[in-house]
Amino acid sequence: MAKDLTPAQLREEIRAGKWKAPTTGVAPGYVQANLVMLPQDAAFYFLLFCVRNPKPCPILDVLEPGQVEPKIAKDADLRTDLPKYRIFEQGKLKDEVEDVRNVFHDEMVSFLLGCSFSFEAALVAAGVPVRNLEEDKNVSMYITSRDCQPAGPFSAPLVVTMRPMKPAEAVRAIQVTTRFHLTHGAPVHMGSPEEIGIKDLDRPDFGDPVTIRSGEIPVFWACGVTSQLAATSASLPLVVTHAPGHMFVSDLRDEHLTLL
Amino acid sequence: MAKDLTPAQLREEIRAGKWKAPTTGVAPGYVQANLVMLPQDAAFYFLLFCVRNPKPCPILDVLEPGQVEPKIAKDADLRTDLPKYRIFEQGKLKDEVEDVRNVFHDEMVSFLLGCSFSFEAALVAAGVPVRNLEEDKNVSMYITSRDCQPAGPFSAPLVVTMRPMKPAEAVRAIQVTTRFHLTHGAPVHMGSPEEIGIKDLDRPDFGDPVTIRSGEIPVFWACGVTSQLAATSASLPLVVTHAPGHMFVSDLRDEHLTLL
Repeated sequence: MAKDLTPAQLREEIRAGKWKAPTTGVAPGYVQANLVMLPQDAAFYFLLFCVRNPKPCPILDVLEPGQVEPKIAKDADLRTDLPKYRIFEQGKLKDEVEDVRNVFHDEMVSFLLGCSFSFEAALVAAGVPVRNLEEDKNVSMYITSRDCQPAGPFSAPLVVTMRPMKPAEAVRAIQVTTRFHLTHGAPVHMGSPEEIGIKDLDRPDFGDPVTIRSGEIPVFWACGVTSQLAATSASLPLVVTHAPGHMFVSDLRDEHLTLL
Repeated sequence: MAKDLTPAQLREEIRAGKWKAPTTGVAPGYVQANLVMLPQDAAFYFLLFCVRNPKPCPILDVLEPGQVEPKIAKDADLRTDLPKYRIFEQGKLKDEVEDVRNVFHDEMVSFLLGCSFSFEAALVAAGVPVRNLEEDKNVSMYITSRDCQPAGPFSAPLVVTMRPMKPAEAVRAIQVTTRFHLTHGAPVHMGSPEEIGIKDLDRPDFGDPVTIRSGEIPVFWACGVTSQLAATSASLPLVVTHAPGHMFVSDLRDEHLTLL
C-alpha cells in the first residue's frame, strides 16, 4: 500500500513521477512540512517573520543558499521531492509544476515549516475527534482579522485551521497540542468566530467546511498557510511553495517535535 | 532600594550613568537578556545560528537594521541602556564601554537572547537549591566538547552553566525549566562532566566555582555565552555584546516566557 511507504521511499516515488497526489495520511507518524523558497536577499526578513510569528510559522529547517538537502531528510532534494509546487513572480501565482530544478538557483533559500498533520494523529490517539479526518475532507482554513508581526517587506493576516469539538475535548486538545510547539502548538482561539473576524464557518477561505454538531465549539489553531501569504506579500522576483496538501515528507517522527 | 526599581526606572538610571553594576538580582521577575549587535550582512546567518541552536540561543527579540527600541522594552535604547558593553573587531575584544552610540550604525542588527536568570527564580520558588545564589557567586560556566550546529561563518562549542543538586531535586528542576523554553529550557546533560568534555568542575571557563556537596550531581543547562562565542567566531568588522553579568533588563515578566 502506498500509505505504508517510508518517507525515503515516498520521496523516491515522487521524484520518479510515480506519486503526484496530496500527501495527507501517507507515511503516518512522520513530520510533513510546508515549503517556502525565496531569494537570499529577502531571507533575513523572511526568517525574522517566522521567528516573530512562531505559532503559524514554526521553523523545522532552513537551508543555506543553494542547498537542497535538508538536515531532516537524508538524501532528499527539495527541488524534486514534493508532488506539486507553486511558482509566484512579484507575488502573483504563475504556475503549478511537479519539479522546480529549472527555476531554483544558487541564491535561493529554502524554509521548511511545521504543519498540523503532526498533531492530528496525537489528537486522534487522545480520543479527541478530528472532524476533517472523520469526513475525509481537507481541514477548514480561515483568514482572520488578526495581523501577524511584520518583518521588513513581509506581512500577513493570521490564517487558522478549525476543528469542532465539545468543551471537555477542547481542554484535552489544548493539553495535547501544547506539546507540539513546533507544529503550531496550543490553539490561538476558541469559541466565537466573529472575535477573530470569521463571518461564516461554513465558508472557509481554504479547504472544506466540516459538520459542527450541537454542543461543539470551534477550536482554532494557527496555520502554515500564513507563511505562504507572507512570502507572497512582498514583490519578489521568485517565490516557490508547495501546492496545498502536497507537503514535504521528512524523516523526523512527530514525537521528535514535542516539547515534553 | 536599587533592587526595587522597575525595568524602566533601572534603564533610566543606567542611561544617566548612575547605575554601572551587574544586573544580577535587580528588577526581580523581569526577563533579562543577552545582547548581540552585528552588521546586517551577517544577520541572516547569525539568526540562522540562533534558530538552529535554540537551547543556548533562545530568541527573545530581533530588531530591524538601525533600530534600537526593542518590542519587549518600551522607550528603551539598546545603545545606552545596558551598564557595560564589549566591542569586538575581527572577532577580537577591543574595548569595554558604557555606551555604544558612537559605534552603532544604521546597518547594525540587534539580537536579544534569553538568559538563565529567568528560571533561577522559578527553581528557588520550587524549592530547588541554586548554589550560586546561595553563595552569592556568578554561576559556573564551562566550554563543552559539543559543537553547535554552524550557520554560514558562525560556529561555536556549546557553553553550559552548572548547578549542583540531589537527584530528586534534579527531577524537579527538569520539570520546572522545561516550562522556560525561551530561557534555555530543560538541562542538556546531568552527571558525568567528562562526557561533555569538562575536565574539572572546580575550574569553570567563566564565572565562579561553587560548592558541590556529597550526594549531589552536576546538572548542566545551555548558556547564552554560546551566542557571544558564535558572534565573535566570524571575522566581522564590528560586533557589540553586553559585558558578562551586565544584561539588558526588559519589560517582559519571566512568566511570559513559559510554555505551560
